[in-house]
Amino acid sequence: MEILMEKDLICTQEWEKDDLDRVLELAFQMKQDRFGKKYLNILHRKQFFMFFYNPSVRTRQSFEAAATELGAHAQFLEPKAMRLKTAKSAGETVEDAAKVMDRYAAGLGIRMLEDKIGAYGEGDDLLREYARWARMPVISMAHDKFHPCQGLADVMGWIEWLSSAGKLKTGRLATKFDPDALKGKKLLLTWAAGALCRSWCSVQEGALIASRYGMDVTIASPDGYNLDPKVIGEVKMNCQSNGGKFETVHEPEAGYKGAHVVYARNWMSPEAYQNGELKKAEEIEKAIKIKGWTCNAKRMAKTDNGIYTHPMPIDRGAEVTDDVASGSNSCIYDVAENRLHAQKAVMAATMGGFLD
Amino acid sequence: MEILMEKDLICTQEWEKDDLDRVLELAFQMKQDRFGKKYLNILHRKQFFMFFYNPSVRTRQSFEAAATELGAHAQFLEPKAMRLKTAKSAGETVEDAAKVMDRYAAGLGIRMLEDKIGAYGEGDDLLREYARWARMPVISMAHDKFHPCQGLADVMGWIEWLSSAGKLKTGRLATKFDPDALKGKKLLLTWAAGALCRSWCSVQEGALIASRYGMDVTIASPDGYNLDPKVIGEVKMNCQSNGGKFETVHEPEAGYKGAHVVYARNWMSPEAYQNGELKKAEEIEKAIKIKGWTCNAKRMAKTDNGIYTHPMPIDRGAEVTDDVASGSNSCIYDVAENRLHAQKAVMAATMGGFLD
Amino acid sequence: MEILMEKDLICTQEWEKDDLDRVLELAFQMKQDRFGKKYLNILHRKQFFMFFYNPSVRTRQSFEAAATELGAHAQFLEPKAMRLKTAKSAGETVEDAAKVMDRYAAGLGIRMLEDKIGAYGEGDDLLREYARWARMPVISMAHDKFHPCQGLADVMGWIEWLSSAGKLKTGRLATKFDPDALKGKKLLLTWAAGALCRSWCSVQEGALIASRYGMDVTIASPDGYNLDPKVIGEVKMNCQSNGGKFETVHEPEAGYKGAHVVYARNWMSPEAYQNGELKKAEEIEKAIKIKGWTCNAKRMAKTDNGIYTHPMPIDRGAEVTDDVASGSNSCIYDVAENRLHAQKAVMAATMGGFLD
Repeated sequence: MEILMEKDLICTQEWEKDDLDRVLELAFQMKQDRFGKKYLNILHRKQFFMFFYNPSVRTRQSFEAAATELGAHAQFLEPKAMRLKTAKSAGETVEDAAKVMDRYAAGLGIRMLEDKIGAYGEGDDLLREYARWARMPVISMAHDKFHPCQGLADVMGWIEWLSSAGKLKTGRLATKFDPDALKGKKLLLTWAAGALCRSWCSVQEGALIASRYGMDVTIASPDGYNLDPKVIGEVKMNCQSNGGKFETVHEPEAGYKGAHVVYARNWMSPEAYQNGELKKAEEIEKAIKIKGWTCNAKRMAKTDNGIYTHPMPIDRGAEVTDDVASGSNSCIYDVAENRLHAQKAVMAATMGGFLD
Repeated sequence: MEILMEKDLICTQEWEKDDLDRVLELAFQMKQDRFGKKYLNILHRKQFFMFFYNPSVRTRQSFEAAATELGAHAQFLEPKAMRLKTAKSAGETVEDAAKVMDRYAAGLGIRMLEDKIGAYGEGDDLLREYARWARMPVISMAHDKFHPCQGLADVMGWIEWLSSAGKLKTGRLATKFDPDALKGKKLLLTWAAGALCRSWCSVQEGALIASRYGMDVTIASPDGYNLDPKVIGEVKMNCQSNGGKFETVHEPEAGYKGAHVVYARNWMSPEAYQNGELKKAEEIEKAIKIKGWTCNAKRMAKTDNGIYTHPMPIDRGAEVTDDVASGSNSCIYDVAENRLHAQKAVMAATMGGFLD
Repeated sequence: MEILMEKDLICTQEWEKDDLDRVLELAFQMKQDRFGKKYLNILHRKQFFMFFYNPSVRTRQSFEAAATELGAHAQFLEPKAMRLKTAKSAGETVEDAAKVMDRYAAGLGIRMLEDKIGAYGEGDDLLREYARWARMPVISMAHDKFHPCQGLADVMGWIEWLSSAGKLKTGRLATKFDPDALKGKKLLLTWAAGALCRSWCSVQEGALIASRYGMDVTIASPDGYNLDPKVIGEVKMNCQSNGGKFETVHEPEAGYKGAHVVYARNWMSPEAYQNGELKKAEEIEKAIKIKGWTCNAKRMAKTDNGIYTHPMPIDRGAEVTDDVASGSNSCIYDVAENRLHAQKAVMAATMGGFLD
């Protein structure tokens, strides 16, 4: 266990498992007692700066609500309306910006996706540059490589559904954190059809944290749609350390058998970035030619009563059929809600020292 | 009377008269005790999401202030900077968006005016689509058809001026709600000159709520500037039910005689939408040719010591002369202030269950 | 001393020296007890409207944080997304806008810089027009002529470093306001290289308030880069009244000798505005030809152990070398932090009546 006050959260992989457990346990407690007195003033009158290099619905809404519910104020800041350095354009040094913001705020969230960078990894670099100079915690609100709060919300939702006190067994979401609930359960993380050229951040984070919690991980994708090999290497290592199996398959139906969680989502190919630019049009053109990668009821029937998960927004009809996305085994709204609770727990821990 | 918690407010016409009375009475009380302890934490730490498809000054300022004064936080959300469906463009389904937002927020305000829709009524449809899927109340912050909070603020201001304890009688605004204060009083709602191609929402809402409170309603407009016939039909029915007279006139001076409230404002013609588009330039060109529809002191002199009302911003010199707009019988700033109090009352009732 | 409740702050020059003292003393106290109970609810549930005609990082962040820390809510309002009059475009009258906002808010901040106006002074005029009609205080958040909160933060930082209990003497920032700490100390305010075409507001405010606090003022600039002669006239008068010396020099090294505070910053020439427009490209072209105006260690060595100050963001390498900006005598981050404390004190005094 570490001191969590002022600890950055750029990827869950960089946190000790014990600390992820503590944060998730707090998130479960906060969900049961949402406006409880003991949480209401953890960050009373403090500031949380949110840099939205990219727009967002859920991330904005859930972080801003999380700040409010802890007594803080979240400032919605759009760097394009400021004079801040991006991965692509000059401006004040990050050192100067970060050192001043440290004087005003208790935490800094940054969202920076594909189209705001020139090559995969540059968003991650910028977050780490802020983290280098800022004393306050830097929290990823989704960037090109990782999406740690989504990963925490995913695991939280899967536990609510799959644990022995969970929805599949009892008809109601589990109310207590069970760190072993996902051990030996199988996650199918599968590429899905669609012309959205989606980021790797959520799926990479999902595979990483699932493997930390002892899940077997199967990644299914068409040829040419591998994720970051370094990240996938870490997923493999996590599986080995925690007794999980890891495999990759390249047929759309191959991974469903025995799955407990099906995570079907579109993502871009490694060729998306070329010559310092995101080639979105080309990526979309390529993706729409790939057929047969929609998650549907027939495929879900092969799973072990598996649940359907997705970080939303869902591209219905392409990534997944409506009957699955809105079906009785879909945990999507619960996972979305958990963004709020997981983020409150992260903020209470890193900005308020609540777990130290 | 109905349970008001989680009740939508898309048009006052859809609320029972008793419930409008209860909300207005609360608004009067809140105005007298603006930062009173009993109101200060009705929505403590809750979220109010504001979707501004269209920009605004007063609506933004008054809703955001109303949320603050009740202890809540209003999120200023611009759908263009998000990835939300509009009447004109695709995006996540409203069902998915609404079901997630329900997990984060206690209420949802939506503003969607003419230029964001393809045909009259589409904004209203979108609000109802959100209301269909969201458990939390959907509150119109002005849309193509209605503007319920403006209507409440109008009636509140007119009562403050016209009741037996009101400003015209006592020199001071009435401090108590009198539901009968407007009975038998005459409202002249008149089209006014100007090249602003203004929405129907405020004037339609004004006519509807005035007729609920027993006013006689005269609508004056040049040929070709009728409002929505369905809405005007409801105004007539309201007048019949409540003992008020209803008439339409088409001469600029015809309606002033005996009026107690003069509401002079520009609005667009029914031809403004063509082929799925707002033809603003054509509307403006047409409107500037129509002369003689400015409210002035000479016309006001024909009224029964009538007050001048307008939801602002006023197009001074076109809709009304300066001496009337800034004159001793102008209630415009009081009505504008009442937006705050009426909205606080609506939010306390629908988001906090304060009147249940 | 005056009643400070509802007093505008457009330039420190318009405030009595006693009142500046009171506000600075409060700012020092607030810095020592940042979340102290006695300050936490001075503006509880009140609104502060911020009109950002121009974008900003620090000003936005520090004002929004200041409001939060006093219990208020700051509304971030972009006039371009509203329908408000600017110096260049029509809209609702300022009288109407101000009179309504008075009903909603406890204070109004306005930021309006060079590119939003047609001629120097028009931004100042618009602020005064708002101040004319609004009962609530109008606070400049930087405009074409002045930047009073920057001036207060500057003086506060210089006192923290230069007073007998200050950092240069004791190694720690002074924690108490000493109104005489700057008496007889020399400020070098020098033009600095760079292609940023910067506003006069900060440097003019700095010279004005420095001379109120008894400093000697040397202004150094290349030929053709004089500041507003009316403002410089006031600086001279202040120096005379307070026993300070005033001089102007036109060589880059001439002013350093004996300086206690070096304020090196780029600014535009008086020719920047032509025919109702800011000629930014021409200004930049002109400025980049002027060599030798970078503040560096060799020059700082000529001072009397002088400190380096700048309102940020700094154009490192042009205005000042990295070793000076990040050196042991640089007060830039402390001054930036003081924006928060000075603004809290101003808001508490003018919006909350805390000093009356």
